Amino acid sequence: MTSSLAQAVLEGNRLALARTLTQVENDSPEGRDALNALFPYTGHAHLIGVTGAPGTGKSSLVNQLARHYRQSPEGEPQRVAIVAVDPSSPFTGGAILGDRIRMRDLAGDPGVFIRSMASRGSLGGLASATASLVQVFDAAGFDIILIETVGAGQSEVDIVRLAHTTLVIEAPGMGDDIQAIKAGILEIADILVVNKADRPGVENTERALRGMLELAHPLKRSERHHSRLEEITVADTPKSNKEWIPPIQRTVCAASGPGSTQPAGINDLGKLIARHRQHLKESGEWHTRDRDRLQAELMLMVQEALVNRWQSHLTDQTYARIFNDLVSRRISPHQAVVTLINGEIE
Amino acid sequence: MTSSLAQAVLEGNRLALARTLTQVENDSPEGRDALNALFPYTGHAHLIGVTGAPGTGKSSLVNQLARHYRQSPEGEPQRVAIVAVDPSSPFTGGAILGDRIRMRDLAGDPGVFIRSMASRGSLGGLASATASLVQVFDAAGFDIILIETVGAGQSEVDIVRLAHTTLVIEAPGMGDDIQAIKAGILEIADILVVNKADRPGVENTERALRGMLELAHPLKRSERHHSRLEEITVADTPKSNKEWIPPIQRTVCAASGPGSTQPAGINDLGKLIARHRQHLKESGEWHTRDRDRLQAELMLMVQEALVNRWQSHLTDQTYARIFNDLVSRRISPHQAVVTLINGEIE
Repeated sequence: MTSSLAQAVLEGNRLALARTLTQVENDSPEGRDALNALFPYTGHAHLIGVTGAPGTGKSSLVNQLARHYRQSPEGEPQRVAIVAVDPSSPFTGGAILGDRIRMRDLAGDPGVFIRSMASRGSLGGLASATASLVQVFDAAGFDIILIETVGAGQSEVDIVRLAHTTLVIEAPGMGDDIQAIKAGILEIADILVVNKADRPGVENTERALRGMLELAHPLKRSERHHSRLEEITVADTPKSNKEWIPPIQRTVCAASGPGSTQPAGINDLGKLIARHRQHLKESGEWHTRDRDRLQAELMLMVQEALVNRWQSHLTDQTYARIFNDLVSRRISPHQAVVTLINGEIE
Repeated sequence: MTSSLAQAVLEGNRLALARTLTQVENDSPEGRDALNALFPYTGHAHLIGVTGAPGTGKSSLVNQLARHYRQSPEGEPQRVAIVAVDPSSPFTGGAILGDRIRMRDLAGDPGVFIRSMASRGSLGGLASATASLVQVFDAAGFDIILIETVGAGQSEVDIVRLAHTTLVIEAPGMGDDIQAIKAGILEIADILVVNKADRPGVENTERALRGMLELAHPLKRSERHHSRLEEITVADTPKSNKEWIPPIQRTVCAASGPGSTQPAGINDLGKLIARHRQHLKESGEWHTRDRDRLQAELMLMVQEALVNRWQSHLTDQTYARIFNDLVSRRISPHQAVVTLINGEIE
């Protein structure tokens, strides 16, 4: 049972793809039907999350990676989708400009499709809408899906959980103080990229990252340094030889215009991503991450559905009465919740 | 009907306060009882949100503000609570160290209470736990509650929504590229602070902020510049004379140790905060923000309660069966949600 829209997407129709993405993003009935029909065809794409602070050159790097997969030094060109998510700007649609700049850069290549999303009301909504868009691209036969997010907070963590492979981007000269915030985001990195590596200070940035990695992965540090703890740690972690140690890769992205630098490190980064994919497949983690992703997505959607159903059973008058009791401090928030929820069951 | 724990909090017992905060943060039955009993006593404190990127000196500024309210140049000393929230670090309890440094700085003053929270599983949980802690402090008679968050993403927006007055902190030399992310957070600022104003580049930072403010508030720009649009904009917005134009304040926080700089601008910042409070009271927005805050909090709690109730009605076997159908792509996420939710009603 396939909707005609979904059928057109499966046949490679770009207009149908664009329409489906819009309908899915709007969570319309047409979008839901299409997604139901497309979902059995998902599970093949390699989902790559790319995150890092503003100013690290994420978008240029994502563009270079897209080119890399299109030129594909080994084997045939891969089809690439880019989903750019901007959760840091809840008020303005900042993603639009980025889209236009990209259009110019990768325009006219039918093997590339770019979609950007600005933030919406709730963060949960954003992560689940992103998940749905990724599924459409996956079913449509894109081999590589690059999911790019701005910033370094919980929102990015929620979104990069969608990915098989997560790249965290750094750049020289972003300030030592910024390190504090990175400690958390580092722990989700599969590959660390020092972008803008032609700038001064690249050694310092790389050293700082290595230091933080050693803090985050003390086991690996002890392995590398052959410390006295080696026997203990190896005994404690029999699977340690299967573990992935996040590598650090320097890159330079070409600036446009005359006198610009040549891109560097992109092919090596592509090789690291391929090696990570192989690691995921061999260790069984590819399947684990797929399950975790679907589980997280399912819980978000259940939450949304429960709230929607509750709201549909609640009259405005009932809500207003209880809310006014709360505002005038006659009942506490917890008491208000109990009343509101039990009202649904009656 | 007051729990004995709540009674002790209302009587100013610090040990009872500490215990209540822990119980409330853990959402234990004892914590819920205490919060139900304390809630009628809330609604008096001035909630001040403080946010900004790492490295802007937020914590020092918050400490200086706490001192300011304790020394209170006009009137009697205010009781100050500090709630430091770190949503950027979902994996590590980074808030602990900050606590210790602060203890040293404000230790021994019974009119100051500091509490820090690291992130927990869900973002919603963090914002609603913060809201509950703030209510405990409010009921316990703290006049000023400083809510400090790290970073500049959706998470901070959710948390500063708790506040009456929001300070957004900047510092010179944080890099021009960072401006992009600030556009969103600027729109929630009631007061902009350029901290570390003794550093080079302070003029540039202030100029950049002013430029962004003018972009974010074109009406105010046209008012200041007496542009040709003035008649139109004034006619369109009859309440414009009541509007708050976010001011920019420079500050310097004292470093500890010999040869350190003297703090500057803190008293002026305190005056701006007092003026904003007066604006909120006169415009009726104090009450509006109170309602909005309670509404947001209520919705978060309803969401949590609905999910908990749903989970309690669901057997592990049912969930596992449906989830496996999803993972093997026999059903779509949307179809899984429908089955899971309807299963509850049966």
